[in-house]
Amino acid sequence: MADETIIRRRTVAKGHGISDARTNNAKTQSQYQPYKDAAWGFINHWYPAVFSKELAEDEVKGIQICGIPIVLRRVDGKVFALKDQCLHRGVRLSEKPMCFNKKTISCWYHGFTFDLKDGKLSTIVANPDDKLVGTTGITTYPTEEVAGMVFVFVREDDFPEEDVPPLAHDLPFRFPENSERFPHPLWPSAPSVLDENAVAHGMHRTGFGNWRIACENGFDNAHILVHKDNTIVHAMDWVLPLGILPTSDDCIAVVEDENGPKGLMQWLFTDKWAPVLENEELGLKVEGIKGRFYRTSVVLPGVLMVENWPTEHVVQYEWYVPITDDTHEYWEVLVKVCPTEKDRKDFDYKFERVYKPLCLHGFNDCDLYAREAMQNFYADGTGWDDEQLVATDISPITWRKMASRWNRGIAKPGKGVAGSTKNHSIRFKETAEGKPPRYFVDQIED
Amino acid sequence: MADETIIRRRTVAKGHGISDARTNNAKTQSQYQPYKDAAWGFINHWYPAVFSKELAEDEVKGIQICGIPIVLRRVDGKVFALKDQCLHRGVRLSEKPMCFNKKTISCWYHGFTFDLKDGKLSTIVANPDDKLVGTTGITTYPTEEVAGMVFVFVREDDFPEEDVPPLAHDLPFRFPENSERFPHPLWPSAPSVLDENAVAHGMHRTGFGNWRIACENGFDNAHILVHKDNTIVHAMDWVLPLGILPTSDDCIAVVEDENGPKGLMQWLFTDKWAPVLENEELGLKVEGIKGRFYRTSVVLPGVLMVENWPTEHVVQYEWYVPITDDTHEYWEVLVKVCPTEKDRKDFDYKFERVYKPLCLHGFNDCDLYAREAMQNFYADGTGWDDEQLVATDISPITWRKMASRWNRGIAKPGKGVAGSTKNHSIRFKETAEGKPPRYFVDQIED
Amino acid sequence: MADETIIRRRTVAKGHGISDARTNNAKTQSQYQPYKDAAWGFINHWYPAVFSKELAEDEVKGIQICGIPIVLRRVDGKVFALKDQCLHRGVRLSEKPMCFNKKTISCWYHGFTFDLKDGKLSTIVANPDDKLVGTTGITTYPTEEVAGMVFVFVREDDFPEEDVPPLAHDLPFRFPENSERFPHPLWPSAPSVLDENAVAHGMHRTGFGNWRIACENGFDNAHILVHKDNTIVHAMDWVLPLGILPTSDDCIAVVEDENGPKGLMQWLFTDKWAPVLENEELGLKVEGIKGRFYRTSVVLPGVLMVENWPTEHVVQYEWYVPITDDTHEYWEVLVKVCPTEKDRKDFDYKFERVYKPLCLHGFNDCDLYAREAMQNFYADGTGWDDEQLVATDISPITWRKMASRWNRGIAKPGKGVAGSTKNHSIRFKETAEGKPPRYFVDQIED
Repeated sequence: MADETIIRRRTVAKGHGISDARTNNAKTQSQYQPYKDAAWGFINHWYPAVFSKELAEDEVKGIQICGIPIVLRRVDGKVFALKDQCLHRGVRLSEKPMCFNKKTISCWYHGFTFDLKDGKLSTIVANPDDKLVGTTGITTYPTEEVAGMVFVFVREDDFPEEDVPPLAHDLPFRFPENSERFPHPLWPSAPSVLDENAVAHGMHRTGFGNWRIACENGFDNAHILVHKDNTIVHAMDWVLPLGILPTSDDCIAVVEDENGPKGLMQWLFTDKWAPVLENEELGLKVEGIKGRFYRTSVVLPGVLMVENWPTEHVVQYEWYVPITDDTHEYWEVLVKVCPTEKDRKDFDYKFERVYKPLCLHGFNDCDLYAREAMQNFYADGTGWDDEQLVATDISPITWRKMASRWNRGIAKPGKGVAGSTKNHSIRFKETAEGKPPRYFVDQIED
Repeated sequence: MADETIIRRRTVAKGHGISDARTNNAKTQSQYQPYKDAAWGFINHWYPAVFSKELAEDEVKGIQICGIPIVLRRVDGKVFALKDQCLHRGVRLSEKPMCFNKKTISCWYHGFTFDLKDGKLSTIVANPDDKLVGTTGITTYPTEEVAGMVFVFVREDDFPEEDVPPLAHDLPFRFPENSERFPHPLWPSAPSVLDENAVAHGMHRTGFGNWRIACENGFDNAHILVHKDNTIVHAMDWVLPLGILPTSDDCIAVVEDENGPKGLMQWLFTDKWAPVLENEELGLKVEGIKGRFYRTSVVLPGVLMVENWPTEHVVQYEWYVPITDDTHEYWEVLVKVCPTEKDRKDFDYKFERVYKPLCLHGFNDCDLYAREAMQNFYADGTGWDDEQLVATDISPITWRKMASRWNRGIAKPGKGVAGSTKNHSIRFKETAEGKPPRYFVDQIED
Repeated sequence: MADETIIRRRTVAKGHGISDARTNNAKTQSQYQPYKDAAWGFINHWYPAVFSKELAEDEVKGIQICGIPIVLRRVDGKVFALKDQCLHRGVRLSEKPMCFNKKTISCWYHGFTFDLKDGKLSTIVANPDDKLVGTTGITTYPTEEVAGMVFVFVREDDFPEEDVPPLAHDLPFRFPENSERFPHPLWPSAPSVLDENAVAHGMHRTGFGNWRIACENGFDNAHILVHKDNTIVHAMDWVLPLGILPTSDDCIAVVEDENGPKGLMQWLFTDKWAPVLENEELGLKVEGIKGRFYRTSVVLPGVLMVENWPTEHVVQYEWYVPITDDTHEYWEVLVKVCPTEKDRKDFDYKFERVYKPLCLHGFNDCDLYAREAMQNFYADGTGWDDEQLVATDISPITWRKMASRWNRGIAKPGKGVAGSTKNHSIRFKETAEGKPPRYFVDQIED
């Protein structure tokens, strides 16, 4: 036996390979290579960090975005954000907050003290004359606070202060300014977090998957099936179509204005998209569609807007903030303009009693599930090459191309931070205690 | 100090290296290199998928074998098996079964619908006219159902339908057909799952280690020590020898018939193997051996048969079905021919009350433990080179050579599937919830 | 859109890079490269293995040091240590101890039997005449037992027996022998585990991080801040300085005696170190310092001594024994000379009631936390290059250089052992059961 050659009996069959008929052929893929490279997110963009109520006066909190650890501290109302990694031995300042005054934050380990405004090493508690003092520092991140949300401009260490764009450039299209450009005869113009008296209610939680997978699900017009059994759908007696199909090449408007958000607007509920009511092959037929009119758009760095949803005068925003290449912070926010205290109370009540349980959970929990279901396919890179996209995938394809062109930088893989080493013993220790990877830093209790 | 050279005081000692006297020297190892490469299993073979009772009419279930996700659906009694990965965005069809008719299975996410028989993309729920429809599809896997077990032919995408061998080629040697070739004067001829009225009772569970490590333990004649304290041994008043030793070169028959299973039969309880009753060095002596006569054989792709075990007229089969390179599904199955309803009931009763607790657990739990104990040594590849095998290891060595020669393909490392990325955040999340890697797909509850 | 070039708007800013003013510039780093390479520890050194009371007569226990699995067995009072990996199939002998006599240990799986003294394969239970017997074996490790502690000389397979140094060479400096060299007018001379009537009380537990990170924390003079809120500090009404600063180049004595421990002694509580009482920048001022006088030194392979701590006539030893590159066994031991039974009882009582809860936990738990906090920064190698050290870091820098020069070998990354493959399914299984990586081997229960 041993001397005979090894036998193989395989012959090539008419296999089920990747079809040439797919929409994302090699040429198309090459147009969004930067997007395929952006596993750790787009950097030099504005991202939501916390809700205002999550950061009280003088509170310190640590988060991670695009592989960058960030510490937030609120002083006299203003939120400061700095790199949350002491330049000395690399611990996170936020793990055990230590602040001796309103101008600085000190490291709890060896007392390295940083200026909140410019990040400079201004002193060392027990070593004030060290030659390192004043020669180095940690990166700071511009912040903005609007409508109950704190935003941080997450930048590379060498991104110049003077080039930081306004927050509005990384937020959804505004109305009524864009009402003419993107008419919406069916519903009132959507509010914005930037509007006067805007109130944002919402929640955020860690999603276990890549941020791009999550983002693409947000404005995907072909996944209605996932939602067909949702309580909100049946509570409202909605009758959903099987899906909606693009009917013309200009079904999506790409927005590349020099001064403003870069993104795309989908012409939903116009004749550029048609609801599908029947599938003969499967014997499916929908009659008397009845549902909500809504419109989805998305802008860099990955901000979804669903206008007129879940009710009139309300808009849903979503962010899929990259933490690492396999975790993101999923933000769901409803925005409404509430000029009076009564408006505000009513919105609060409805949010807690209806929107949060039935929409942000209920409805969107299905999306969260769907995104996790894709993760194995994409986690090792296989999915980006092997997926066979179809006509309805014009939305993610357009997004990928647009994002490849207009992002302000591709985040480098995290180094020396949570998630840069994925199988460390501490991760196993925490997991054994029931704590998976997460967005917020755990603080030590004295 | 700083300018002096770095000092090392090591001298080479007469070390404890790998002995030249080991049975598996370099030449022998080269004869089973393909086996060393088969971390993800042998592909293009028949494997058990589920017990018949685990898949009711119209039920859908997802499993993974050799790194290939497979979805099973039973329609009008027949079991269909397809690749459990939608070609669109890669989710598993089995996570949330959606079937509109008896001929297809649809993806719950975007409605891609596949023909159960040939895997073709036959329609998309909301996009029936897409140019991709009809041009692509997912691989299907032939199935057979016998004696209460569902078998699947796990093949590469390009393995031709017409080359699929009969199930019998991947099952243990049959009797009485082979009674002359492999005489067994001491016990009745073993039943087969292929026999008329055969009943298979058993269980399967996930083993945390490589399938080869598990498989080699099954027919290893030198591990009697592991079982010496088992309840069944003492309940039966067995007196086991210290071990059994090969006494001649032909102690194992290699079977390489063109039409039939490829494997090996051990001539146990003949004079080609001698029980060892004494070890003078250790002062051990066994008197009056008393035990069960049994005989072990193994065939590709790794199917153990223990004839005349755990009792007369019964045979134990075992499979070590590769899930990934570090998990396998461990199958223990007892087969008996039960022509009458009474026979069947008696066998059921004995299985539940005696064989399952004392043998499939009890006795074989020790094997499961022993296999896991080897895992660190082999997991990083070290063990395959460093193990020092001895004369009694003629069984695994013969198996490795035979398997290297006659397997129908070496499974490639899984891509885009569970286990292809081992330290993903979802794995940590599930582990934190107490759920380690496993064979079956968890289905979402609506 | 598609044909336009991709736009980038980044310009280089006066960034917060790594300051040239840091103490550990490239030249300094090159002087301790061997230390940077020693992720798996220094080999060919003495390490504590267990407390004497953890290994009863005839007990068998498995541990891992520097990536080497080690099995301990006590016979007639003497402790033997061997490589805990059967040379046959690589299982750990300690998982299911099997010893047929006082001279050997046998593998529970296939009966390979090793001589306790020299590790030779002396027989195989059921295969005593195999040609492998007598030609091979497993490495043995010299042991010493003093003051209630068992030490093992963890060596490379080829490190010669005759070159094994005395245990004293890997233990802290002795007193009064060194009282002249290292005068200590403020306190009585420190006891040693080698002293007659020495009693060692302590504990050990697994730390989730690299051993070097842990070790450097032990004699770090700049981390007083971490301890400022500890109960022991306030119970004793201590007033700690902000920190202490070196005032001269000879603030640390490097000891490189040919016959004796290699290490360094810090001239604490001399005028070579000055307490820092004020930080003007931060408006901090300490008055009337009151605390314990102590002195720290460290010797290879990483043994801390804190003299005169936590009380007079007592010394605290610490070890940070490498298990893998991301786990270590943290040992905290208090040593006192107790000539009488009453002395012994008093020390026992104080240890259990005061020192263990308030010092070994309480005080040192903060150190354990601080070490884990550094782990992300160093785990991927980033920290070793990016840390910006300052004047007070003369202690770790001196230690790194000294250790680079005088270690007896750099442990190779573990192979075929626990931790060599970090994301194996068994690790996830155990983690799901609440069991993170650890020092001791779990034994199977029959």
